[in-house]
Amino acid sequence: MITLASDFGTPYPAAMKGVLLQRTDARLVDVAHDFPRQDVRTAAFWLREVLPYFPPATHLVVVDPGVGTDRAAIVLRAGDHALVGPDNGVLVPAARRLAGGDEDRLETYVINERALDPADPTTPTDSPTVSSDGEAPRSNTFHGRDVFAPAAGAVHEADIDALASLEWLEPAAIDVDLELPVPALEDDRATGEVMVIDGFGNAITNVPGSYLDGRERVLVDGDRVPVGETFAAVPVGDRLATVGSHGYVELDVNRGRGDEAFGLEPGDRVVLEPDGSGRD
Amino acid sequence: MITLASDFGTPYPAAMKGVLLQRTDARLVDVAHDFPRQDVRTAAFWLREVLPYFPPATHLVVVDPGVGTDRAAIVLRAGDHALVGPDNGVLVPAARRLAGGDEDRLETYVINERALDPADPTTPTDSPTVSSDGEAPRSNTFHGRDVFAPAAGAVHEADIDALASLEWLEPAAIDVDLELPVPALEDDRATGEVMVIDGFGNAITNVPGSYLDGRERVLVDGDRVPVGETFAAVPVGDRLATVGSHGYVELDVNRGRGDEAFGLEPGDRVVLEPDGSGRD
Amino acid sequence: MITLASDFGTPYPAAMKGVLLQRTDARLVDVAHDFPRQDVRTAAFWLREVLPYFPPATHLVVVDPGVGTDRAAIVLRAGDHALVGPDNGVLVPAARRLAGGDEDRLETYVINERALDPADPTTPTDSPTVSSDGEAPRSNTFHGRDVFAPAAGAVHEADIDALASLEWLEPAAIDVDLELPVPALEDDRATGEVMVIDGFGNAITNVPGSYLDGRERVLVDGDRVPVGETFAAVPVGDRLATVGSHGYVELDVNRGRGDEAFGLEPGDRVVLEPDGSGRD
Repeated sequence: MITLASDFGTPYPAAMKGVLLQRTDARLVDVAHDFPRQDVRTAAFWLREVLPYFPPATHLVVVDPGVGTDRAAIVLRAGDHALVGPDNGVLVPAARRLAGGDEDRLETYVINERALDPADPTTPTDSPTVSSDGEAPRSNTFHGRDVFAPAAGAVHEADIDALASLEWLEPAAIDVDLELPVPALEDDRATGEVMVIDGFGNAITNVPGSYLDGRERVLVDGDRVPVGETFAAVPVGDRLATVGSHGYVELDVNRGRGDEAFGLEPGDRVVLEPDGSGRD
Repeated sequence: MITLASDFGTPYPAAMKGVLLQRTDARLVDVAHDFPRQDVRTAAFWLREVLPYFPPATHLVVVDPGVGTDRAAIVLRAGDHALVGPDNGVLVPAARRLAGGDEDRLETYVINERALDPADPTTPTDSPTVSSDGEAPRSNTFHGRDVFAPAAGAVHEADIDALASLEWLEPAAIDVDLELPVPALEDDRATGEVMVIDGFGNAITNVPGSYLDGRERVLVDGDRVPVGETFAAVPVGDRLATVGSHGYVELDVNRGRGDEAFGLEPGDRVVLEPDGSGRD
Repeated sequence: MITLASDFGTPYPAAMKGVLLQRTDARLVDVAHDFPRQDVRTAAFWLREVLPYFPPATHLVVVDPGVGTDRAAIVLRAGDHALVGPDNGVLVPAARRLAGGDEDRLETYVINERALDPADPTTPTDSPTVSSDGEAPRSNTFHGRDVFAPAAGAVHEADIDALASLEWLEPAAIDVDLELPVPALEDDRATGEVMVIDGFGNAITNVPGSYLDGRERVLVDGDRVPVGETFAAVPVGDRLATVGSHGYVELDVNRGRGDEAFGLEPGDRVVLEPDGSGRD
């Protein structure tokens, strides 16, 4: 199984799928192709939250503002999973989660440029990328198609315990080690950050949902907001704080948009405090 | 085969797919994940029109404004098909259509909460939802991933003739029996309703297309509009009434948007009458 | 393998998939369903650029502003590939590319209307389109579901070398022979055209990337613009000309939108010239 995630929209992911299907019969599953353009942090967050629901798979990820520069193309093995993409941090939080936080279950490889030499039959590109007209140019702007997809196809077909034996992979260290922000928890105050806004407008923070345990109300940046177990705990159109599906505090509106009601954007700081009457 | 439909956008459907693929090798087919947010009626309409084109399948549907409340999670068997989703009416029109209008071919089951106990190996969650870090929290806000997807995977793997034997399903009656509106046909006048606007801007009513049989023109809310068999029956930019692909009267513009030209939104009443010169 | 491309958005492609899956177990791969509405030229361009990355497949394409008129429904065989769609030119550039520019590898067939007679078991519609209620109306507005999908399923199941033996296909000539514009190259000046704007805002022209070989700067409609091998060759927010992933000159902005910065839309003429200091 190969999952695909990118900020490409359409039809670029289809070209990656064509390249993959030249090399493998694997099941292909889209994670998302509408990640915010060139926003490594948002993609890294979502991948960390979503990929652990998959059975062992190869995960092809292309959110790559540095395409064509000297940033490396890498393969991360994380337990039974492999992640293929640029060395800009986008793979790292998901890889750590998939490895269960155990660094011993992580392996990092850099994809050797020779891997892209179509004349070398031992590399991932021994099947021609372009089937019909003899041209198989490597672009400087679409490594998703020309580098990462061939590599993901080859990784999928390989024995995951033997990645080190593949000539076109070289053991290496991660260059960009992205760590997503963690909240500061001090006494009863949590200073966190809005990680993403989802399509419903829910503002998903990085504060653990357990912060809300036993509270009926909470101060969000000084404003009193009810805590609800479900959106429907408050009237339609009202704000609430709840524990979102990923286990973090979310700032929502029942059948409305939390981002607008709270005036929050990704990256904004959020301070949560007990309301004046103390812990309920 | 399992189809998936929701109002989730991305990447939430990917989490559902991961959960499904932990449990089944079934083919997964997306119906739509951009249904209008929390709009049960629109989703119910589209599912009724689209699902009958599929061979026997399990249909996972999550448009669920009441997620986390006490609305039940249900499985409807409809002939050779099974539908899994919330008991808010969204499944009902499609189920009736799939059963060919024969109530004897419909069976309703409520998903038992115990089905979600990961410690019980006879329930759909005997495979861990989260593969790597030992956490498998059931959220109050994402039953698509935590309730409906595990149930759909288990229904798919079960014998559809033996759903009643599954411990985690209990025979029940539908709680919310959504009936989509039907038009009033009186003499030569049809009083219908705009069911949905499609992506082209076509205003799809609930008036049977046969209303247009033999007519060259029709009055739409009092305005004379030509009847065409195809969009191209009128000049580019002109309005027309036609029989849409689902067999209903549509109010369209050739290469334009019918909703804007007619000033119509979903739920609007539409009165169709013969034009002044009588039936052509 | 069957690929699907259309301007349908959702959920119409799902109905096509249901129809296909009534007839075949083929893998289904979406190319795009958000092509600009009824824009044959843009779809033709993208298909020409993307489909060659696929292994041999049947390609179902529905961008069909003339649906329901007397434009023919056709099958084009191009080497090991088959394309199914309307005879409005949308298939032609891709077919020529898939045939490697060799007209001898192209075959054209018109789909016989009798192919749609559900009473004739030798036609593509021997399986009922609608599984449950006995209705299988052929619409005048959705040939993607009612004509092209059944035909694509049948083509996929047939021997591609024996298409001529299928009763419901008749050898024919293409009616609309769409040729995408080619640039005028005169001395050192290239007069080309913007073919499409991609989702990143890159303005993709039809001028071969080789035009930029050895140049450090170029005049675009008289304005001096740096040439870069990658977006990152210029500061964030700056304009550049580069060779895009399809081998054409693209007018881009590093981490911004080239269409807005250059004021370009699809179909606009673009003149490229050496800058004042001559070839670098």
